[in-house]
Amino acid sequence: METIEKFLDQVPRAVLLPASTPIHRLFGLEKSMGYVEIYVKRDDMTGIGPGGNKIRSLEYLLGEAEKRNCDIVLTAGPEQSNLCTLTAAACAKLGMRCELIHNSSEPKRKQGNLLLNSILGVRSHFIGEKTTKERNVYMDELAHRYEKDGHRPYVVRNGATTGRGALGYVAAVREMKRQCEHMGIKNMTIFAPGGNGGVAAGLIYGNETMGNPFHLVIVSVEDDKETLTAHVQEVIQELTEITKIPMKRKAEEAAEITDRFRGDGWGVNTKESTEEIFEFARTEGIFIENIYNSKVVVGMKTWIREGRTSGPVCYLHTGGFGSLFAQYDE
Amino acid sequence: METIEKFLDQVPRAVLLPASTPIHRLFGLEKSMGYVEIYVKRDDMTGIGPGGNKIRSLEYLLGEAEKRNCDIVLTAGPEQSNLCTLTAAACAKLGMRCELIHNSSEPKRKQGNLLLNSILGVRSHFIGEKTTKERNVYMDELAHRYEKDGHRPYVVRNGATTGRGALGYVAAVREMKRQCEHMGIKNMTIFAPGGNGGVAAGLIYGNETMGNPFHLVIVSVEDDKETLTAHVQEVIQELTEITKIPMKRKAEEAAEITDRFRGDGWGVNTKESTEEIFEFARTEGIFIENIYNSKVVVGMKTWIREGRTSGPVCYLHTGGFGSLFAQYDE
Repeated sequence: METIEKFLDQVPRAVLLPASTPIHRLFGLEKSMGYVEIYVKRDDMTGIGPGGNKIRSLEYLLGEAEKRNCDIVLTAGPEQSNLCTLTAAACAKLGMRCELIHNSSEPKRKQGNLLLNSILGVRSHFIGEKTTKERNVYMDELAHRYEKDGHRPYVVRNGATTGRGALGYVAAVREMKRQCEHMGIKNMTIFAPGGNGGVAAGLIYGNETMGNPFHLVIVSVEDDKETLTAHVQEVIQELTEITKIPMKRKAEEAAEITDRFRGDGWGVNTKESTEEIFEFARTEGIFIENIYNSKVVVGMKTWIREGRTSGPVCYLHTGGFGSLFAQYDE
Repeated sequence: METIEKFLDQVPRAVLLPASTPIHRLFGLEKSMGYVEIYVKRDDMTGIGPGGNKIRSLEYLLGEAEKRNCDIVLTAGPEQSNLCTLTAAACAKLGMRCELIHNSSEPKRKQGNLLLNSILGVRSHFIGEKTTKERNVYMDELAHRYEKDGHRPYVVRNGATTGRGALGYVAAVREMKRQCEHMGIKNMTIFAPGGNGGVAAGLIYGNETMGNPFHLVIVSVEDDKETLTAHVQEVIQELTEITKIPMKRKAEEAAEITDRFRGDGWGVNTKESTEEIFEFARTEGIFIENIYNSKVVVGMKTWIREGRTSGPVCYLHTGGFGSLFAQYDE
């Protein structure tokens, strides 16, 4: 049977990351917690557009689009969607045409990610106040029309959370494994966010199929443990269909999955997560946003305080710096 | 006589950069220009606060502050100053107290860098509408008051453009030299901005004292060639006083310095520089701002088109992503 590393070497990939993202010590946090070897993996520094974790998924999705000779990439999201802007930036780099579908009306003044999309020269479809489902129907119809016109559209679905997209975090496990070997870091515990399960699925599947170089703690920022686990398992199922390499254990056996820090779910801050925005910036000079990252840091610090970790720990920073400006107001 | 590399190994430095910033190919630009081997040095990815080139200067300035056991770092700038926010973020990482002086009134609503400063928990002095000179007087008086109270303040002067601050780009030359050796890149021409001369002075001095591994083209974004050259020469003089290692040639002999792309000077866009904001993002998926970076890219592309380069070229991206939102409005 093929190994996952061999699989990664031959599966279509569009190179977007300029380099491995850094892993470095958080000395300020170590000092304040009295714990030695706290690292951060800087996936906020993926180097395309405003950066962030979805660039890793796009490497494999757009790699597939290139392989299939697609000539238009379509994706959808709310107007400030990071995925939309990242897809537009990645397509620019690859010389692919990109169109975005937003379920809102076109605002008079373009701000934040909409401004970036406009700099990137992408065509945006503002379809008015619609549900996510209606938005997806619009996207499918648009793809269909382009096909009829002789184009080959490629649709980035479900916020890039698919088996193909999750290959990005399978590859990230290999990248971190190599970095840790090089840096002499052993038995590291990685803390990562669990939203709709894409990052978590890639990490868990990659770690398991590469012989568990890491311990994983997935901090849910949205759903209860059962729901998140089901999402993760679903993406792992899709991954397995692509790679044909089965995982021996279930997701919840291969990683710790906790819903203790999610508060009232996605986008709803907890007291601790809001404080962590300040605390982390004031300890490390690194900004984190308040939907995914702050809850993960709260989880990691709690795990450390409660003595649930031994050896090096690492917080996976998934980016989203731009969102901070909309999340915090003084 | 000591070598510059030995000097760099022993001079006080506070480690701020998480890793060498990437150097990578710009394949889209290469294709559109029909020129092989165009690189970018990603000093927008310096990994502290919003990132950018001044983190390199702060490594040596705050290294000196630590060496002197200073307990308060002071710096000044307009309210959206990147240097102020970067200094605050760097001080947070190093566990140093930081205070900022802005020559404006305190706005009711904090936006952009002011919001970041507030997240970083830094004390900001809003001294009302004053000149840069008055602002500096205020800073000196503040430092003096702190000294009287038994503190040891450290003042980051002149936007970090000093001989000490320029050591950051001397070290960057060594970093790039090592990267190019590793990547097998030879005789590369680096295009970098010339504003008040800090980056340029560090690059020119570093390149000259390390045996000229690179060709340098400094693109003025502000002053005419004579004025910029004088600024650069002044900073090189300060550098030489610190290192005691003289440079054999004058700045204008050691690098090409051009004022052809500055238009009407600092912060005044040219038609070409404004177009380049769009052009570059649409070719590479990387954002550049319109005060320093766009003029440098225009210069590099003109140099290529006019056949003034041979071999690999590299654009030094100095960051400033955040400023873009205030520079471009649709």
